[in-house]
Amino acid sequence: SISMISFFMPTNAFSKYDVDKNVSLGLNIDNLSKIMSRARDGESLIMKEHDNKLTLEFSGQSKRRFRTQLIDVRKSVDKEPSVQFDADVEINGETLKELVKDATIVSEYISLKATKDQFTIDCRGDSGELNEEHLSDGNSIKKIKTEKNAEATFNLQFLENMVKSCPAGNYISIGLKSNEPLKLTYKVGEAQITYYLAPYMES
Amino acid sequence: SISMISFFMPTNAFSKYDVDKNVSLGLNIDNLSKIMSRARDGESLIMKEHDNKLTLEFSGQSKRRFRTQLIDVRKSVDKEPSVQFDADVEINGETLKELVKDATIVSEYISLKATKDQFTIDCRGDSGELNEEHLSDGNSIKKIKTEKNAEATFNLQFLENMVKSCPAGNYISIGLKSNEPLKLTYKVGEAQITYYLAPYMES
Amino acid sequence: SISMISFFMPTNAFSKYDVDKNVSLGLNIDNLSKIMSRARDGESLIMKEHDNKLTLEFSGQSKRRFRTQLIDVRKSVDKEPSVQFDADVEINGETLKELVKDATIVSEYISLKATKDQFTIDCRGDSGELNEEHLSDGNSIKKIKTEKNAEATFNLQFLENMVKSCPAGNYISIGLKSNEPLKLTYKVGEAQITYYLAPYMES
Repeated sequence: SISMISFFMPTNAFSKYDVDKNVSLGLNIDNLSKIMSRARDGESLIMKEHDNKLTLEFSGQSKRRFRTQLIDVRKSVDKEPSVQFDADVEINGETLKELVKDATIVSEYISLKATKDQFTIDCRGDSGELNEEHLSDGNSIKKIKTEKNAEATFNLQFLENMVKSCPAGNYISIGLKSNEPLKLTYKVGEAQITYYLAPYMES
Repeated sequence: SISMISFFMPTNAFSKYDVDKNVSLGLNIDNLSKIMSRARDGESLIMKEHDNKLTLEFSGQSKRRFRTQLIDVRKSVDKEPSVQFDADVEINGETLKELVKDATIVSEYISLKATKDQFTIDCRGDSGELNEEHLSDGNSIKKIKTEKNAEATFNLQFLENMVKSCPAGNYISIGLKSNEPLKLTYKVGEAQITYYLAPYMES
Repeated sequence: SISMISFFMPTNAFSKYDVDKNVSLGLNIDNLSKIMSRARDGESLIMKEHDNKLTLEFSGQSKRRFRTQLIDVRKSVDKEPSVQFDADVEINGETLKELVKDATIVSEYISLKATKDQFTIDCRGDSGELNEEHLSDGNSIKKIKTEKNAEATFNLQFLENMVKSCPAGNYISIGLKSNEPLKLTYKVGEAQITYYLAPYMES
């Protein structure tokens, strides 16, 4: 599956933000996430780029400086796809996570369908079938806005990874159009995270 | 090891029970337990057989329908063995689970022995030996009823699996006769679960 | 890496201690720790040596006797190394455990350095570098006593295993001398545990 992630954090989410021109830093995600996992409650983080390396300094009871090599990202990053979606569903993150787990039991693919007042999923695999109907109830489904019915099929594993980081209680906005890429957006604190996932086409 | 399980749930455990003649449904246990693991607090479950498939519909905030293929069980199921046991031990489920864990440290087999007022176990393996004496104290061993002393040896792994589902606080009834199959019975809510396990005979 | 452990438990930590002459018992650590893991709250433990076997009897609601074969340790056990350390650092066990986890992200080795008022670590690996400065603040570093600066490099995996059993809230005493073995000491209840670890020398 073709997928893409876009992450935005406003400057006011930083206690100090001192960048005089646009910079692109290429980082190994695996290394970065290992380092970030070492952050502790109440620590401040200073990120500095110097000499093709990024220093991440955590300051609290002690000063802890991790330094990691930057990687080449001169090749321009892909633009976000500009799809005009037919349906917009606001779904509780937990509801979507559970729904994905249900689906994983029977298949590796999931069909998402949005109609005027209902969000349904369908899965079909060797071990069985699954069909779920979620009504727009203001709670697990906050709202559904449709131009016309929209339905497309996606890889479950990718979807599972994309919803994983949604904080409990937050809502995920789903942009859906028949046989077009899916757009998933949610907030993590001040930051906004957006995923795109191309539909699965049966050959 | 040869083993067998028998499960009984009274009709009053269902909010609605509508079966006009005896039916046997063959189900893949692995699929069934995956589906059942998706049940949520406060949901109701409707099971319907149709067209050689079983639909399991969970209803709560959403309607979730799993459908799974039935498998052929026309071949008659084995009858439960009719052993006249010499000893009947009522043991706390937790006590039995812990006792099995103790035994697993030294061996893959366990000898269970019931006398008038004592339930003992013996294990012997390459890394050591274990001997435990449990008195009929009205607590971990609620009671022991013996016609005569009974002792037999069983596969620990099977025993471990059989006691796993006993809810905390419940008692397990053990039917024991020298060198005969073991019978294990306990309640899970309204349901009653019974296991049989053939003894291990050293060749 | 060459490492060594020394464990001391005073006789008053036992409710009864009846040993009329020095005895050395050789035990398989793996077996012993499996057996000890079966101890339960409120049980008493009696250890008896007989006929080249050690019986460990747990008494509580039931009597549980594990018996394990002794192994030959006639060959004299190595003496503890007698290093005159240049630096003595008292560090909170949790601080040391976290510091080791930080280091594990970038390397398999860690350089420990003690100066008059600072304890620093340095790591360097394929995925990045780490440098930490811990001041003697009376809390995470209780105190640093130095004759002169001391610095040596150690295997992280061994260090991780050595600090693992330090109870939360306890302090670990580190004896450090440039390019000499490290000495780690902490208390577990009444017992005192001491580890030695030879430095890693880059070839």
